[in-house]
Amino acid sequence: MKGSKKILSAFVLSLAFILFGCSNSTTPNPSSTSQAAVAPADPLPSWNAGPAKQAILDFVKTTTDKNNPKFVPVEDRIASFDQDGTTWVEHPIYSQVLFAFDRVGEMAPQHPEWKTRMPFKALLTGDKEAIEKFTLKDIEVIAMATHTGMTAEAFTPLVTDWMAKAKHPKFDKPYPQMIYQPMLEVMKYLRDNGYRTYIVTGGGQDFVRAYAQQVYGIPPDQIIGSALDTQYAYNKEGQGILMRDPKLLLNNNGAGKAEDIHLFIGKHPKAAFGNTDGDRQMLEYTQASGGASLEMLVLHDDATREFAYGPAQGLPDTKVGTFPQALYDEAKAKGWTVISMKNDWKQIFAWDK
Amino acid sequence: MKGSKKILSAFVLSLAFILFGCSNSTTPNPSSTSQAAVAPADPLPSWNAGPAKQAILDFVKTTTDKNNPKFVPVEDRIASFDQDGTTWVEHPIYSQVLFAFDRVGEMAPQHPEWKTRMPFKALLTGDKEAIEKFTLKDIEVIAMATHTGMTAEAFTPLVTDWMAKAKHPKFDKPYPQMIYQPMLEVMKYLRDNGYRTYIVTGGGQDFVRAYAQQVYGIPPDQIIGSALDTQYAYNKEGQGILMRDPKLLLNNNGAGKAEDIHLFIGKHPKAAFGNTDGDRQMLEYTQASGGASLEMLVLHDDATREFAYGPAQGLPDTKVGTFPQALYDEAKAKGWTVISMKNDWKQIFAWDK
Repeated sequence: MKGSKKILSAFVLSLAFILFGCSNSTTPNPSSTSQAAVAPADPLPSWNAGPAKQAILDFVKTTTDKNNPKFVPVEDRIASFDQDGTTWVEHPIYSQVLFAFDRVGEMAPQHPEWKTRMPFKALLTGDKEAIEKFTLKDIEVIAMATHTGMTAEAFTPLVTDWMAKAKHPKFDKPYPQMIYQPMLEVMKYLRDNGYRTYIVTGGGQDFVRAYAQQVYGIPPDQIIGSALDTQYAYNKEGQGILMRDPKLLLNNNGAGKAEDIHLFIGKHPKAAFGNTDGDRQMLEYTQASGGASLEMLVLHDDATREFAYGPAQGLPDTKVGTFPQALYDEAKAKGWTVISMKNDWKQIFAWDK
Repeated sequence: MKGSKKILSAFVLSLAFILFGCSNSTTPNPSSTSQAAVAPADPLPSWNAGPAKQAILDFVKTTTDKNNPKFVPVEDRIASFDQDGTTWVEHPIYSQVLFAFDRVGEMAPQHPEWKTRMPFKALLTGDKEAIEKFTLKDIEVIAMATHTGMTAEAFTPLVTDWMAKAKHPKFDKPYPQMIYQPMLEVMKYLRDNGYRTYIVTGGGQDFVRAYAQQVYGIPPDQIIGSALDTQYAYNKEGQGILMRDPKLLLNNNGAGKAEDIHLFIGKHPKAAFGNTDGDRQMLEYTQASGGASLEMLVLHDDATREFAYGPAQGLPDTKVGTFPQALYDEAKAKGWTVISMKNDWKQIFAWDK
């Protein structure tokens, strides 16, 4: 499970307004007569000139030009974005895991048995050594205990509240400010050109849905993620409700991403953005659509402004967000574009001017 | 909407038209100068005046009027339609079951073992007595044998080819002509008013997707149905493909409809249309959205123009499309609208003028 959500601070909100206003002025407006000679504003101002930026511009130009043999009709314009490490920071730990850890603290008074039971005990006593040794199974036990047993609707405010107050350990800012500005620009640029943008994440679907409209401008039905089973039941008023069950229905990672894209959308994406081996099949499936397509992978090679990890290209191997050399080689062989965070991104965060 | 028991007089109806016309005429339309006195065309011409038609008109008027406290913002305008028995004929047998039966005949040369193996033998020898005794398990065996073992993409033309040639046993017309004209009008009317229309069917998701754009104007990502697992694999060219596996992932019926609506859309519908007990939870979940909502059930009470079955209201009990009296009673108790095919539909099929 990867994933997370947000409440916009007045600062980010005002920034968003500024950006929105600027890009709006680039939209051709037939009623204004004095703009004919003005060069269109750069739709990707946070990107340095280079092959990555050019690949995006070329793809949009090609697929929206009716006279181009690789023109894509608007109903087939689908772009999919992995989240963790692709549209926001995933290091040193997935935000949704932190959310689960924080929930353990909040729920502890109702669970006195956790004081002596692992893995909860490690979190409640702050046993860093034990926490660092958590297995995937430990994380799963914590996730199920903290993400289930409530209605689908009751889960949403738990996420939004956390997103408003939790801060990233390195940047000391709320998670909504951990979004990559260059990716927000790509999403907007694609949408302005008729593409529907989807988040396709290994993180929890309902976790991401809780904030995606606000931070990405993406509605709930365009969030595809790992999903728990729900159980239909009735509340005291006799109304139909959905209880979140501790059973994984969709593991939306690796091959699961391609399978769930078919399940939810019924079409191949034409553009896909990822950053780990878990995005490989999504990119392959995008390229298998035939015709023009765009496949991009973010390489985290900027230890100064964000983090540096691989192990592709000799970068440090880490537990979170593995980008193996084999994926790098596949990208090169298949004509996918590797985005160098260090070289291709002029600015990483909206606040980091 | 709770107008089901109210019978509108011609007077009230004409008043409604006048009001509707007035509010329309307030919208500035610079290109049409001579239409001020023309009454707007009826958006539901195949519906007889009555509580069912009025419930639809009232619902749309209420939820799209910004000054109404029950106004629904456009992003929440979601309408869900069951398919079999709600938007097209389901008697005497579901079309997808017939498709599977026909596929057995086509596939038989590659399966000599079917000649002696039930349930296939019954179909290949035309043993009507044995076919009538098919259990649900028999149907499942046939469905899995005929719907799996190919890629998701190879399945689509199998369905479209069948839809073009198979004919309904009673009406002797291809299945795309078995669609109810009144429901096509409701779908269009809702879409014209900002609603997104979804098919939410117990039938196979990929089966319905194969023709839904053409017959309903509904794209693949707005088809929610029972779904098989797919398995990511590679073709000879090394491209990513999805194989259809003989394993049911989603059983989109009954409670499954409410659960899958959450999974796919992440919101409650504001309007829902069904015709059987399998649609009950979808209608309940729609009503649980709060504010204005519209819940409608088609009662097949027209043996002359279509079929008559219940067992609600003393109509014959049949295997296909059960509408029990308890569902009818729940509808009445909760203010849902029961559509009488006989009384509410002036015309049933587009060709049946």
